[in-house]
Amino acid sequence: MTDRILQYAAILRNTDTKAVGTIDFTRHVYYNKRAMKIKDIEQARQRIASFVHHTPLEYSETFSKMAGGPVYLKCENLQKTGSFKVRGALNKLSKTDVGDKKVYSCSAGNHAQGVAFAATKRGIESVIYMPLSAPLAKVSATEGYGARVVLHGDVFDDAQAEALRICKAENGIFIPPFDDEDIIAGQGTVGLEIAEDISDAETVLVPAGGGGLLAGVAFAVKSLLPDVKVYGVQAAGAAAVASSFGGSPKTLDKIFTIADGIAVKRPGDITMKYINEYADGILTVTDDEIASTVISLIERAKEIVEPAGAVGLAAAICDRYPELRGKKTVCLLSGGNVDVGFIHKIIERGLVSRGRQIRLSVVLSDKPGSLQAVSGILAENGANVIAVQYDRVNAGLSLNETILHITCEVTGFEHGKRVMSALEATGYRLQ
Amino acid sequence: MTDRILQYAAILRNTDTKAVGTIDFTRHVYYNKRAMKIKDIEQARQRIASFVHHTPLEYSETFSKMAGGPVYLKCENLQKTGSFKVRGALNKLSKTDVGDKKVYSCSAGNHAQGVAFAATKRGIESVIYMPLSAPLAKVSATEGYGARVVLHGDVFDDAQAEALRICKAENGIFIPPFDDEDIIAGQGTVGLEIAEDISDAETVLVPAGGGGLLAGVAFAVKSLLPDVKVYGVQAAGAAAVASSFGGSPKTLDKIFTIADGIAVKRPGDITMKYINEYADGILTVTDDEIASTVISLIERAKEIVEPAGAVGLAAAICDRYPELRGKKTVCLLSGGNVDVGFIHKIIERGLVSRGRQIRLSVVLSDKPGSLQAVSGILAENGANVIAVQYDRVNAGLSLNETILHITCEVTGFEHGKRVMSALEATGYRLQ
Repeated sequence: MTDRILQYAAILRNTDTKAVGTIDFTRHVYYNKRAMKIKDIEQARQRIASFVHHTPLEYSETFSKMAGGPVYLKCENLQKTGSFKVRGALNKLSKTDVGDKKVYSCSAGNHAQGVAFAATKRGIESVIYMPLSAPLAKVSATEGYGARVVLHGDVFDDAQAEALRICKAENGIFIPPFDDEDIIAGQGTVGLEIAEDISDAETVLVPAGGGGLLAGVAFAVKSLLPDVKVYGVQAAGAAAVASSFGGSPKTLDKIFTIADGIAVKRPGDITMKYINEYADGILTVTDDEIASTVISLIERAKEIVEPAGAVGLAAAICDRYPELRGKKTVCLLSGGNVDVGFIHKIIERGLVSRGRQIRLSVVLSDKPGSLQAVSGILAENGANVIAVQYDRVNAGLSLNETILHITCEVTGFEHGKRVMSALEATGYRLQ
Repeated sequence: MTDRILQYAAILRNTDTKAVGTIDFTRHVYYNKRAMKIKDIEQARQRIASFVHHTPLEYSETFSKMAGGPVYLKCENLQKTGSFKVRGALNKLSKTDVGDKKVYSCSAGNHAQGVAFAATKRGIESVIYMPLSAPLAKVSATEGYGARVVLHGDVFDDAQAEALRICKAENGIFIPPFDDEDIIAGQGTVGLEIAEDISDAETVLVPAGGGGLLAGVAFAVKSLLPDVKVYGVQAAGAAAVASSFGGSPKTLDKIFTIADGIAVKRPGDITMKYINEYADGILTVTDDEIASTVISLIERAKEIVEPAGAVGLAAAICDRYPELRGKKTVCLLSGGNVDVGFIHKIIERGLVSRGRQIRLSVVLSDKPGSLQAVSGILAENGANVIAVQYDRVNAGLSLNETILHITCEVTGFEHGKRVMSALEATGYRLQ
């Protein structure tokens, strides 16, 4: 570890020459051709340090067991504004001669809050465009950070077109969400923190949408710790970086995922150059894997992480990537801005898929006392009824029969089976 | 602040004499009569330090705005096993000559996990009794920390009687949940951390059930920072410490609260002595205030806190306690072990009470196309339908009418009103 720190110090001192101590630069053929140097990331950190958290890196026993190797969580969900986005926005604004201009941006998500917060902290007025469908919680959070929010258009593209039009007309400064060297350098400061806090990491898993975070983190981590594997992780239904990896950016026709924060149709040109050079691969995870990971984070780590922020951890525990197993792995939790209504839905789905809710359809004779008899059996067996619905017009029923649809809470699959067996043992027919 | 540290150092050096630097001990009349000294808390910390986290103290802008003064969150929900309980259990076990005996305890909550973890870390076998109704998640978490879990009896009291019986028969060691000086000293280490990390705090709010945490924290904080006000906070439906405050422990006939972790009928004898001496008062909050605080913690702080753990913060933001307003306040978040099914319910309740879900009852003529017409208006107005139910047998309907009960997601009260007005403007009757 001391060696690595010395190497790191050497890099910081010598970023403009090739004499950089003992670092192996065979992996970094573009090092002196590209604009960005590791010094840029270090300078970005100095610019933003007083406004952002050096977020915690937490070892998780639970997820280590699930992943079959030590898992560390890099908690950018606990960053100011609830995501890493504030880092890039702050770096960009610090390097831009804003004067008395306003800054403009368009986002229905974390970028909005990052720009609003960054502008306010630097004493700059900000105007954020959002589509009319933006959740109230995001609108008020962005306003709370000091931005003026303009709701315009039904979808993101309409809002963005209007933002660009007004920004140009007003001679404002537009802050792009990811495809920009200063934004990438700002996001890369997460990578610096990882490299310093756990210099013996073997694998770093980074959520990827437009690719700003992945580009910055891969660049920073590989520059300091060349042997660490850095993978981008995407939702299977919106895997534009995966499709573009190794070539130029491709545009997906349509995307569909619960991970709205990384639902991007086309990655950036600049971000893809860095990703192609510095990332070791792009992995994908399904929406079910993402939902289950979000619930496990709530249940075991007591952390709220949005679906987009959980994809890295989902890849680590999904058991489909043998190259990840047994490694000392850092999962970057990129954000925590999830609507409570959405958590509600995700938990509902998770409760059913984990056997914690069961839905029974019981055929009853249509006469007084039938409900009482069934509910007695449920109570005896510890099942908690949460919804009941009668159905008299189901095909296949005789005239004096009715179907009772019951939703119950149980402790798990075993308990659910016991409840069903108890009903059948008493002579009830289950559909 | 330097002064306070010097005072603190003086106390640590001189705990057995009255010459303790510049500390004002007028508030501490029992200081030399009681068994516990601040040194005991410091020693407890040394005993447990390698097994527990010094948990983060986080400033919260959101909650500061709500409370009208600076609010800091002491995150014991991020402690090992998800609550402070592990501190007391570790201290108790470190001071007990266990030999080759087993330790026994009974709990359906955080104490179970604390004892299991503490015993395993110290290489001791543990047996935890839980009632048959204990949630599967708690059973598996406790087993995961290395305990043998025995499910016995329908309610807590049955499980505890059996645990005590077997413990005696097997010559084991029983670990009490709160009414014990070593347990109190262990929980008091949270108070040490608070006093060190924010020595200019004005108020500390501590959840109280049996009183172990409150006793320890009040003792530690007041010993080091005599001017800080320390209040216990209880659920209004289970306010046994509040009823007992200033006198001897009283037993409540019945208790009812969503904050299961502090639903205790009778506080401890030892804990009440310390609380009477060191706490400045006991506040109560309602279940609605608790539920709303749990949701706000999820939404804004990205923290999972169980209802019992949120009562301190609920008191800070409830606007009913003028003595709390404008003060630099530490809210101790005591635990985060909440069942996801319970979060699901709390969010559901919160969504309705915050106007994010509305339930409409629309009178329709009972003919084809009626549902389509209504759902068209809902769609145009951006309301997302999540449940629909028909009711043809409602009193007060004519034969060709039916009632449609619709549950919709909206962005808030204003949006809900717009949706209702749009339906009424089109001629629909709402019930």
